[in-house]
Amino acid sequence: MISLEEFRSAQQRTLDMMDKAGIIVTPEEAERVEVADLGFGDLERIGLQILTYVNTDRVCAKELVLFPGQTCPEHYHPPVAGESGKEETFRCRWGEVYLYVPGEPTKEPRAKPPAGQEEYYTVWHEVVLRPGEQCTLPPETRHWFQAGPEGAIVSEFSTTSRDETDIFADPRIMREPQVEELD
Amino acid sequence: MISLEEFRSAQQRTLDMMDKAGIIVTPEEAERVEVADLGFGDLERIGLQILTYVNTDRVCAKELVLFPGQTCPEHYHPPVAGESGKEETFRCRWGEVYLYVPGEPTKEPRAKPPAGQEEYYTVWHEVVLRPGEQCTLPPETRHWFQAGPEGAIVSEFSTTSRDETDIFADPRIMREPQVEELD
Repeated sequence: MISLEEFRSAQQRTLDMMDKAGIIVTPEEAERVEVADLGFGDLERIGLQILTYVNTDRVCAKELVLFPGQTCPEHYHPPVAGESGKEETFRCRWGEVYLYVPGEPTKEPRAKPPAGQEEYYTVWHEVVLRPGEQCTLPPETRHWFQAGPEGAIVSEFSTTSRDETDIFADPRIMREPQVEELD
Repeated sequence: MISLEEFRSAQQRTLDMMDKAGIIVTPEEAERVEVADLGFGDLERIGLQILTYVNTDRVCAKELVLFPGQTCPEHYHPPVAGESGKEETFRCRWGEVYLYVPGEPTKEPRAKPPAGQEEYYTVWHEVVLRPGEQCTLPPETRHWFQAGPEGAIVSEFSTTSRDETDIFADPRIMREPQVEELD
């Protein structure tokens, strides 16, 4: 849970980062930047900020904004209603992001899971994405990612997003917004 | 048909525009920027430049780059192999673009079709897209667009692209690249 003040401050910080990266958004979009604390109330370490451009029953496009060192915890996207799980392409636009997927574990990975939560991080093959670099994940691929020291902006191109169906390795994670007093 | 010199020059101009807009691409991507003259050999008036980030059997994302006043002629995306036609979202990143779709014809539209080709432009409902503004077209929507006086960069988020199946109003249009001497 975060306070309304923390929520507004995280939104503004997200917009400032997008502005710095030359990504222009409308006032209506600025208002609906999503701050996903995932139930931890600890945005400096865990969560992400999201601006969804479009999400139809076929296609979704978003910007994901991560503060320096912020982690999106391990999860995957299961099949829903007979359709394959969400397919995602992550394209780094700004900063640097460390993406972890199944495969040969990377020695000396750049990211560290949030202290005390190591047990929920099980895939350790590292893909470093710098601006202009991208990676496409097939459906049902477990993954997690962490921003580098300056933060990161990542464009996500995917099939339909159904966030409420995401399966996180940490069963405590709540995907729904957890903001105090937000009407 | 365009010469190899025209092709390289259009590629470089495209990359310069992307750079100005803060869009970072890899050297490999720079090499494969597509210059679609659509068979007219008249890039200042007709065609578009394309960088495809990803095109899987479910999702496609591209940047479309248009020179000042350049026109992508009227076309639509038919159903293919039992799947609905391509669904597209156009999001203006830089410059200004005038998009025409079915609906009430706009009085005094901003764009003009290339002289002598007016008969192939049949939809006249104007949507002006400036940076941060976007429009989603349902499958099989006839559309055409023209860049404003500074050109335009438009992100396209869509289902799978199958350019060779596009149906243009002008039957002379060839979607395949028409470059002299390009190996």
